[in-house]
Amino acid sequence: MSFNAYYNGEFKSIEDIHIPLTDRAVFFGDGIYDAAIGRNGKIFMLDEHIERFFSNLNYIGLPFSYSPVQLKKLLLETVRLSDEKSYFVYFQLSRYSKNRVHAFPESEKSNLLITVTPFTLADEDKKVKLIIDEDRRHALCNIKTINLLPAVLASHRADLCGADETIFTKNGIVTECSHSNVHIIKNSVLFTHPLDSSILPGISRMHLLSLCRKLGVNYIERPFSVKELIEADEVLVTSSSKLAVLASEIEGKIFDEKKDSLGKMLAKAMREEYLALTL
Amino acid sequence: MSFNAYYNGEFKSIEDIHIPLTDRAVFFGDGIYDAAIGRNGKIFMLDEHIERFFSNLNYIGLPFSYSPVQLKKLLLETVRLSDEKSYFVYFQLSRYSKNRVHAFPESEKSNLLITVTPFTLADEDKKVKLIIDEDRRHALCNIKTINLLPAVLASHRADLCGADETIFTKNGIVTECSHSNVHIIKNSVLFTHPLDSSILPGISRMHLLSLCRKLGVNYIERPFSVKELIEADEVLVTSSSKLAVLASEIEGKIFDEKKDSLGKMLAKAMREEYLALTL
Repeated sequence: MSFNAYYNGEFKSIEDIHIPLTDRAVFFGDGIYDAAIGRNGKIFMLDEHIERFFSNLNYIGLPFSYSPVQLKKLLLETVRLSDEKSYFVYFQLSRYSKNRVHAFPESEKSNLLITVTPFTLADEDKKVKLIIDEDRRHALCNIKTINLLPAVLASHRADLCGADETIFTKNGIVTECSHSNVHIIKNSVLFTHPLDSSILPGISRMHLLSLCRKLGVNYIERPFSVKELIEADEVLVTSSSKLAVLASEIEGKIFDEKKDSLGKMLAKAMREEYLALTL
Repeated sequence: MSFNAYYNGEFKSIEDIHIPLTDRAVFFGDGIYDAAIGRNGKIFMLDEHIERFFSNLNYIGLPFSYSPVQLKKLLLETVRLSDEKSYFVYFQLSRYSKNRVHAFPESEKSNLLITVTPFTLADEDKKVKLIIDEDRRHALCNIKTINLLPAVLASHRADLCGADETIFTKNGIVTECSHSNVHIIKNSVLFTHPLDSSILPGISRMHLLSLCRKLGVNYIERPFSVKELIEADEVLVTSSSKLAVLASEIEGKIFDEKKDSLGKMLAKAMREEYLALTL
């Protein structure tokens, strides 16, 4: 029996490896991978693949205790144990295994996995048939996929800054926070980004607007700028775990609590509905 | 001991659950999640969360054998078994567990996981401190993260069309393929998208350019349009597993093999280097 996979110190067959539910690959896709092909105990362009892998680890601040030389040795050892003659080598490092929290500490132990699977290079005359499609890789913000790495990195940066959340902007327009929606109140009117592919349609956002209707608060769904955000009377952040909370400070600008604060009233109303409905 | 997690039919404690390495959440982030908070056996806005979850499953064509009513019952049962009084409920469906291939069949059994963890709502007066950052969620194409869902969907669409790969375009410019780089040859010059955040710096792309230098083929690194792609003499696709292959057809436009084909010469040279170096 061949051992064609490796996970955190153990060589096994791919189907025998089970990993912790809490591996951050599972929840966040919080990891980096690379892959290469090879034959006869060798891996093609291995140094380049390893160099790119380490450079990518750097991009997302993913610590790894191996040196490039150690990783190379381990990859070749996994290939050897696999007994494959011609293969596809895949390797992936995920941040660590622990409870699901976006922001991450620096010091946890990352998870290394390697698989070696049979691979045959296509015939020399092989050609590919292609289709054209719009590049949608940048327009899935409205879908709660587990492709959460940018949110993870933004949460981490907020953490390092002693802040709670990061507000995202695009071409000067405020979209949403890394894992919340954000709204402003100006002259007693609430403004919120309309539903489109640039924000998640938050359940608490929907709830907030229904409370506005119920409590007679005017609201307008339209994009607003960073300038409008900074000059707002109040800034309200909503999410399923926060419900609704007011901002105290944004990039050094302090938001003092207003007398007869509309934001506070809305936040309180949502909180009370939550408490009443979960009694 | 409380069972605060569920995976494919089993209730266990979170730390006791291990999942197959081949769960597509691990490799691709190929799944959908939702999350909500609750107290006293209830989950806040549960119907809305479930509705959004099913709607998101639809977006990415992820089959699920449960009805919304069955899922709701299971979520509430997991909450009951957890013995938590106030909690955060997380649920995720990933496409299935099997060998790592981008494109997917329709009929595999998806993986459902649920976790219930202690949660305390922040104090009523809690405010959040915020920072502002550019929205980088749409500019990580140059990093090989495992946030691969758009590539997965594009591969699936190519599969349904009987094609091998999907070429991505952005504002009329060809960027790359869903898991390859793409290059054109026109009047004996090779054109390839320059390295920036919109393409992956492919190892085989780098290799191709070094072969051009070695073999005296002129190349220019600049963005090219869909029109230039279609009107090219030859189209070459490179990746670590394909090395370099010529396109035979793009959206119905047939690319006949040229006499003294430069693309074929480059593909052959790369293939020969591969074979020689992995002897």
